[in-house]
Amino acid sequence: MQQIYLDYNASTPIAPEVKEAMLPYLEQYYGNPSALHFAGIHGKEAVEQARSQVASLLNCSTNEVIFTSGGSESNNHVLKGVFQSYREKGNHIITTKIEHPAILNPCKYLENHGAKITYVNVDEYGKVNPLDIEQALTDRTILISVMHSNNEVGTIQPIEEIGKIAREHGILFHTDASQSVGKVPLNVDTLNIDFLTIAGHKVYAPKGVGALYIREGIEIEPLIHGAGHERGKRAGTENVLQVVGLGRACELAAISDRENEKILQLREDFWHQLQLLPHLSLSLNGHPEDRLPNTLNVNFENRIGQDILTSLPQIAASTGSACHAGEVNLSPVLKAMGVKESVGMGAIRFSLGRYTTKQEIDTVVQLLRTI
Amino acid sequence: MQQIYLDYNASTPIAPEVKEAMLPYLEQYYGNPSALHFAGIHGKEAVEQARSQVASLLNCSTNEVIFTSGGSESNNHVLKGVFQSYREKGNHIITTKIEHPAILNPCKYLENHGAKITYVNVDEYGKVNPLDIEQALTDRTILISVMHSNNEVGTIQPIEEIGKIAREHGILFHTDASQSVGKVPLNVDTLNIDFLTIAGHKVYAPKGVGALYIREGIEIEPLIHGAGHERGKRAGTENVLQVVGLGRACELAAISDRENEKILQLREDFWHQLQLLPHLSLSLNGHPEDRLPNTLNVNFENRIGQDILTSLPQIAASTGSACHAGEVNLSPVLKAMGVKESVGMGAIRFSLGRYTTKQEIDTVVQLLRTI
Repeated sequence: MQQIYLDYNASTPIAPEVKEAMLPYLEQYYGNPSALHFAGIHGKEAVEQARSQVASLLNCSTNEVIFTSGGSESNNHVLKGVFQSYREKGNHIITTKIEHPAILNPCKYLENHGAKITYVNVDEYGKVNPLDIEQALTDRTILISVMHSNNEVGTIQPIEEIGKIAREHGILFHTDASQSVGKVPLNVDTLNIDFLTIAGHKVYAPKGVGALYIREGIEIEPLIHGAGHERGKRAGTENVLQVVGLGRACELAAISDRENEKILQLREDFWHQLQLLPHLSLSLNGHPEDRLPNTLNVNFENRIGQDILTSLPQIAASTGSACHAGEVNLSPVLKAMGVKESVGMGAIRFSLGRYTTKQEIDTVVQLLRTI
Repeated sequence: MQQIYLDYNASTPIAPEVKEAMLPYLEQYYGNPSALHFAGIHGKEAVEQARSQVASLLNCSTNEVIFTSGGSESNNHVLKGVFQSYREKGNHIITTKIEHPAILNPCKYLENHGAKITYVNVDEYGKVNPLDIEQALTDRTILISVMHSNNEVGTIQPIEEIGKIAREHGILFHTDASQSVGKVPLNVDTLNIDFLTIAGHKVYAPKGVGALYIREGIEIEPLIHGAGHERGKRAGTENVLQVVGLGRACELAAISDRENEKILQLREDFWHQLQLLPHLSLSLNGHPEDRLPNTLNVNFENRIGQDILTSLPQIAASTGSACHAGEVNLSPVLKAMGVKESVGMGAIRFSLGRYTTKQEIDTVVQLLRTI
């Protein structure tokens, strides 16, 4: 039975080029990068090369990039770090209702520690209105955190406009770009970003590694204290093996324009074919245009998305809805977008990637014809 | 020129068996362990197998083990988590003067947030007196954190006795066992431990992964909030590739008795040969008996340890002293042990490991003869 992977937004395979870059650090180079001897130097150089690969993708300096254990750590680092370091200035943070739990749950934690959080709404396409951000500003606001694109529906946020508002009002601006890296261009300068989160396993590097861009001149409390790694910003012996992989993956991502064009065409073909299927009432979640090229979130109306996926075990895809002990709840993202329960409970997120083929799409359409 | 690695306490090579266990997760299995489909299941099963391998080494249940990005994160998690969750009970933490920076710097951070920290002294062998711990207890004490063994001199602490004191007084007890795992037996029950830190790269697994034992029934605030990974105790997509490596490494560590016996004999032979070298005034740092079998920290009196190492670039070893901009300072560990500056500035830590040979030791002795 052919297995078809359409869950790239959950986790990507490790690219063969990334694997090749990592192998010497699995087999051969094991020194601690902090060591001064022959065995340490390889690791140190490898980490610095990876840092310049990440910096190059984001158009920033190498001293603005630190390596972390992934997107969740990067997000926690920014939210908690800014809250602690700017407490005298204020305690108000603006974010959105459709962020990843790795933003929403640190926000809840901070609310228990005196923070005031505004969760801005989105429109029916899952898009934030920059004016809503501006209206939420108070003289106690210290941070705006808006995801670059949404993981479930793929809607790309107006980050440049929000960045402009943040800059005009002198407020720090963070974007969780975990889902965007490698799928759309990212430039921290044109976007007016102060902090940006990267997660390795969304960009063909391994799970368990990530990065955080911190604009030069901004100092926030570290999340992990200890020895002076990462210029005192993040303690812990460097994850050389996976940092090397993330660096190589970012290098590949920097030249992925044509690949994303191909993925977009496959996705459009997929959606076109799905709409021709008889006996199904389908609708699209997410913005019709401002959307990640690989993401197709479809409501199979009056159905349960997970039931469809369970009946087709050869397809790997996700629903946005969390399923606990048999009870299925509407995804908070779709709820915020105003999607009706009878519609949104049928949502399935298909996310395509570098290795998706036309044949795979055609097979999935045939399989869905049977439901 | 033969290169000889005697810096296993800084970082171990990845064992070939560990590499073999990891390769399928580098090449083949890439699903997100949270996913419900075919691609997710491999990752989920792999993480749970690794958890049982770690639990088996420590003699605990699998639900008492969480995976982290390494020793620094594990230590931060415990110190900050206990401080936050037990704040109503008190604000006093007892630790020692010879802990790793990944304990001392979180402690400094907590002092800035209202904690009161007692840094207990050690004797000339780097050993803590359990009575000093008991005498430091107050009715505001919430945590005792004492390293299992010291990274620089190898002295093994009286953890069982300290654990007994902690238990008698109803105080939580943490030990940073980063340097001990695989070198000496560890049993969280006989040692009365509530929290224990493991770092992958000290036990022939990669850098960037670690674990934390948390005794069942104890709830502390997470360090990284987000989605519900690790039963809500540590958010972030699981580092499957390296977690698998850590699991396998712990399995190998559980049967390393004979290996440690061999390493101890090599170390004793090394020390014996060194003492026969003419024109050198040598002394030993650390406890003569209660010491890690692989660690030999020697003072080349009236010399500078780093100068010796710089003159012998084919040897990978460390000094405990931090060298900043040409200025060399006595290691804080040796300082706490009362080692005189003219003596301790000549310290070199040789740390042996699984792949160290008699021939390597003999070569190093010959090289040291030339200084």
